Amino acid sequence: MSCRCAVDVHAHVIPGEFPRYLGGATPAGWPSMAPADACHRHVMIDGKNYRTVSDKCWTTSRRLADFEDMGLALQAISPMPELLSYWLAPAVGAQLVRYLNEQIAGMVAESGGQLVGLGAVPLQDMDLAIRELQYIKHSLGFAGVEIGSNINGVVVGDPRLDPFFEACEALDMAVFVHALRPAGMDRLVGPAALQQVLAYPTDVGLAAASVLTSNLMTRRPQLRLAFSHGGGTLAMLLPRLEQAVSVFPALRDSVTRSPTAQARELFYDALVFDTPTLRHLAHTFGATQLMVGTDYPFNFHDHRPVERIQDAGFDALALDQLLQANARRFLGLDPSLPRTTP
Amino acid sequence: MSCRCAVDVHAHVIPGEFPRYLGGATPAGWPSMAPADACHRHVMIDGKNYRTVSDKCWTTSRRLADFEDMGLALQAISPMPELLSYWLAPAVGAQLVRYLNEQIAGMVAESGGQLVGLGAVPLQDMDLAIRELQYIKHSLGFAGVEIGSNINGVVVGDPRLDPFFEACEALDMAVFVHALRPAGMDRLVGPAALQQVLAYPTDVGLAAASVLTSNLMTRRPQLRLAFSHGGGTLAMLLPRLEQAVSVFPALRDSVTRSPTAQARELFYDALVFDTPTLRHLAHTFGATQLMVGTDYPFNFHDHRPVERIQDAGFDALALDQLLQANARRFLGLDPSLPRTTP
Repeated sequence: MSCRCAVDVHAHVIPGEFPRYLGGATPAGWPSMAPADACHRHVMIDGKNYRTVSDKCWTTSRRLADFEDMGLALQAISPMPELLSYWLAPAVGAQLVRYLNEQIAGMVAESGGQLVGLGAVPLQDMDLAIRELQYIKHSLGFAGVEIGSNINGVVVGDPRLDPFFEACEALDMAVFVHALRPAGMDRLVGPAALQQVLAYPTDVGLAAASVLTSNLMTRRPQLRLAFSHGGGTLAMLLPRLEQAVSVFPALRDSVTRSPTAQARELFYDALVFDTPTLRHLAHTFGATQLMVGTDYPFNFHDHRPVERIQDAGFDALALDQLLQANARRFLGLDPSLPRTTP
Repeated sequence: MSCRCAVDVHAHVIPGEFPRYLGGATPAGWPSMAPADACHRHVMIDGKNYRTVSDKCWTTSRRLADFEDMGLALQAISPMPELLSYWLAPAVGAQLVRYLNEQIAGMVAESGGQLVGLGAVPLQDMDLAIRELQYIKHSLGFAGVEIGSNINGVVVGDPRLDPFFEACEALDMAVFVHALRPAGMDRLVGPAALQQVLAYPTDVGLAAASVLTSNLMTRRPQLRLAFSHGGGTLAMLLPRLEQAVSVFPALRDSVTRSPTAQARELFYDALVFDTPTLRHLAHTFGATQLMVGTDYPFNFHDHRPVERIQDAGFDALALDQLLQANARRFLGLDPSLPRTTP
């Protein structure tokens, strides 16, 4: 039985249409929509069907109609990650993400307070990214931003991204890190879906680990940073990293605080499809750091996020934290809550 | 308190000297030793110090002297993975691994039954690899073979390696899969040691997952296949893979049995440096599939493998399985035990 109380931090938006590129011939990588059946469309990129998606991606009423069954009170919506488009020329990418952000703002406005926005910024250009971050904060009222686990191969913990995180901290914007163009693709044996299934959590785990080894949360202690897919593989990397810091002098010198302590300052969605794994994550990262994440409305989304958390045997306080309080803290929605880890 | 009963499946050998290459000028990648302090030498590859290592790598008496403290009755010894040398020309690699195998055989002979051999084969050439496998089985009496998590980028589950696994099954040789030249290197932020710390378990997890998605254990049900470092990141990938098989038609068609059921037919060492993680692995993979693994004698080895397992709260049966029975089954040392999973 569902509570209709949960806050979902991991749900995606695709606009129902894409505009023509303003500025000449359509650049490579600029998306368009092609009709499919009554409720679906094909997202076309460079003449190929990237993914066939449901109108729940763009029709607010269709999305809200599912909240009851899923037990949701609130959902943070972010672009389908491929649309972050870091590989486009900066001015082109900036035009596309501005359009995405305006679409998200429209859905938030239609939702009667049931949706909040996590926008996109063109991180292939730091100045443009920070300008768009200011825009989505001040003009669109978004709670935060979605970024890839790597930006054209530059992993989240890389100090080259420091100016962006400094701006996020200064603007009090939540940062949701989602897998994108992952490492490990040449280790997959099987159908294309394995990119999402195996390489996505791999890239997220390495991205989260890079935040620990580069001490990002020590440099930016007020930053609110969340990782998709339960932090991916991080939970299996963390004890080895913790041990390594006590063994390798070079790591002891460069990692200035316990990786485990740092990991317990990050947020993670609970999108792991397994109750014992969820309990292990709560033990590893703390029940104060996990949040509902569904990947709605894609095929591979969690249809029963609330029940899965209810089944895990948490006490009442932890249950409330996982279902909604942690997400409200991450999203900065409850000014009475301290933003950082209790 | 230690039991002096444990069987360690993950321990490495480096010869005290490397021979000159027989056949002309020394090829690129051929290793040599350079003196360090009294008890150490530098493994030199292409003029660089690959690693400074202790004489415990090659001196049998020094190794056996540590068994009491570590609680070991038996240790399976395999080459330092970089020495597998799959990137050398086949005839060159075959010459090097033959030398490694003879050195391992010498240490086993000196050990009074306390060491067993896991040899190397030149998998860059399938015919030479199978010939060497026959040699180490029939002439050297090894229990099995160590292979990389990928062979020059070809991951363990790739069907191109099927003839090798068919031979391992036919010859009743255990296969120990160890991380090597891993994926994910471009996601690391920090000192070089992060290759071992983060990329190694990443590559092992992807390698184990490739075995599941390619149904290797369905094709070769008698194969005994073990993964280093607790299976790396596999435990975090597995629930998502299990869910995906029920969601993506292409995966449902290609993965013919439950990935979780398949994962519980593989063996894993318990080298995860953390008791709750060890308990989670036992839950995920089964207490029948985990074995002591120490990474002895490298700096980053587990000095108290027995205590860590004793601390995890397993019942007496599971404790015995983890400490020694599973490893004896994996290594094929106890003919009264069925080789495959109970």
